[in-house]
Amino acid sequence: MHAIGIDIGGTKIAGALVDPDGVILRSVRRPTPAGDPAAIVDVVVELVRELGDGPGIVAVGVAAAGYIDAAQSTVYYAPNINWRNEPFRDRLAERLPGVDITIDNDANAAGWAEYRFGAGRGTTDMTMITIGTGVGGAIVTGGRLFRGGFGTAGEIGHLRVVPGGHPCGCGQRGCIEQYGSGRALLRFAGEIADAGGIGQGIAAARAANGGTLDGAVLASLIQDGDAGALAALRELGDHLGQACASIGAVLDPQVFVVGGGVAVAGDLLLDPIREAYLAHLPARGFHPVPEFTVAQLVNDAGVVGAADLARLHASGALGSAE
Amino acid sequence: MHAIGIDIGGTKIAGALVDPDGVILRSVRRPTPAGDPAAIVDVVVELVRELGDGPGIVAVGVAAAGYIDAAQSTVYYAPNINWRNEPFRDRLAERLPGVDITIDNDANAAGWAEYRFGAGRGTTDMTMITIGTGVGGAIVTGGRLFRGGFGTAGEIGHLRVVPGGHPCGCGQRGCIEQYGSGRALLRFAGEIADAGGIGQGIAAARAANGGTLDGAVLASLIQDGDAGALAALRELGDHLGQACASIGAVLDPQVFVVGGGVAVAGDLLLDPIREAYLAHLPARGFHPVPEFTVAQLVNDAGVVGAADLARLHASGALGSAE
Repeated sequence: MHAIGIDIGGTKIAGALVDPDGVILRSVRRPTPAGDPAAIVDVVVELVRELGDGPGIVAVGVAAAGYIDAAQSTVYYAPNINWRNEPFRDRLAERLPGVDITIDNDANAAGWAEYRFGAGRGTTDMTMITIGTGVGGAIVTGGRLFRGGFGTAGEIGHLRVVPGGHPCGCGQRGCIEQYGSGRALLRFAGEIADAGGIGQGIAAARAANGGTLDGAVLASLIQDGDAGALAALRELGDHLGQACASIGAVLDPQVFVVGGGVAVAGDLLLDPIREAYLAHLPARGFHPVPEFTVAQLVNDAGVVGAADLARLHASGALGSAE
Repeated sequence: MHAIGIDIGGTKIAGALVDPDGVILRSVRRPTPAGDPAAIVDVVVELVRELGDGPGIVAVGVAAAGYIDAAQSTVYYAPNINWRNEPFRDRLAERLPGVDITIDNDANAAGWAEYRFGAGRGTTDMTMITIGTGVGGAIVTGGRLFRGGFGTAGEIGHLRVVPGGHPCGCGQRGCIEQYGSGRALLRFAGEIADAGGIGQGIAAARAANGGTLDGAVLASLIQDGDAGALAALRELGDHLGQACASIGAVLDPQVFVVGGGVAVAGDLLLDPIREAYLAHLPARGFHPVPEFTVAQLVNDAGVVGAADLARLHASGALGSAE
């Protein structure tokens, strides 16, 4: 049975028709009318009709950045879209009769895709950490997506790692998001640039970019093996590995999958994560340790995961692939 | 179907015959021959034969402090018993043919009992934090015990809350076990006693106890409303509540169940936990919040939970009560 996955981002809405093996058969995208909830419903309905042109589509999964309730129906809150306690599934259901619709957090959908068709395949317990502008997470345990009691589980980015530390957009201080995200990487790189020494390469690139450091500039420095940029990446990996040692004590995954834009650095990022993990692991040597690997599906993970979760929901498997 | 639960502690082995509603029908206990793995097998077999006197016992659940593998078969390591990669289930199975035997971590067994028959009843997602000498944990999600990929999930006590903080028995520093345990409470009380002021009551009780502060002395001070002892309890609750804010972001339980000896303080402990939780909650106001409550089964939780997990395993429900 094919299913449709829709991924609602702050700037674009992506949709895809996905087969049971996670293969995208067709895909479309539109700009997000972020300020207008009614227009978002219109766009999603339009994409579903376009992708499902023909019989046999009974399941639509929608992924969105935000807190989704455990019933996969209501969006409590979304940071980039004007939603507050929005009964999004009901609004779509009115317009799409006979279709099984589920709503999921975008990080959970992407994590599920990695578990089913990507870097987590073959395991039962996976923790995904997505390093984008912020830090996202998704947890699979016993072959099931861990949604939590209210639907908001897996917010790994807001694990506090430094009491009284760097302020976070969640209103607290010291969250791992402030030490392990793409934004944190730029901050570390800027500090290294200001310190001189091995930071001179970053400082020069920053000056050539009009005084601003961005992801593209830093990615290019990393690719060139610039010592300062690599030091910033190691600092990021060190923080992430320490956090994973705490997360691992609680979640005990077989594999940590590292995703998001920064993960393209591969072992340049994974090696310091692994080192810090082992150095900070409680009761090291007395229990098995997980692997660390990078995500495989990248841009398509949201639509593929949302479609698969919807397909399993419609077939009564409830987000479980056991 | 009745089942037998066995709880192997460092000093005693408790056994009980438990009905499907979690009611103990019969119970026995023996001293633990902690240094002699073969003798432990003998005692467990003896208890099972004694408790299962008659037909119909097909399931035996054993709870033990330590790391148990995901197959519920091998003990990787136990801090109080001379076990290392001990194939404990196989050793018991040789002696108890025809019986379905499962091994579980003792905190997981106790947490499962609270979920099924105690403070977590009626929820789907529960996090239990047990405050004894150390800090233990158990996680239930979607009606299932969260064992993790290697069987060692739920080690909440080793979440790091203070980088470079107090040394921990796990070989790391700054684990919540060092700020939220019964031992931490005694340390806080001792520091308050040394500081004078409201600590004078603790100092006097300590002197009357031969210069040593222990759990009984402190419990008595708390019961009498001693200002210093209550301050120590608030300090403990404050640390635990802050840790729960991080734990909640990842696990999103409907209820936190607080167990262990210190939990008898009730709201004197829960109130500061709740306050610190809300003060440190990421994105407060944008998603539902859990309740905090104390455990109900106390001493029997280990045997009751182990028996229920074994019964469900034998019936093919695999530690799930959905």
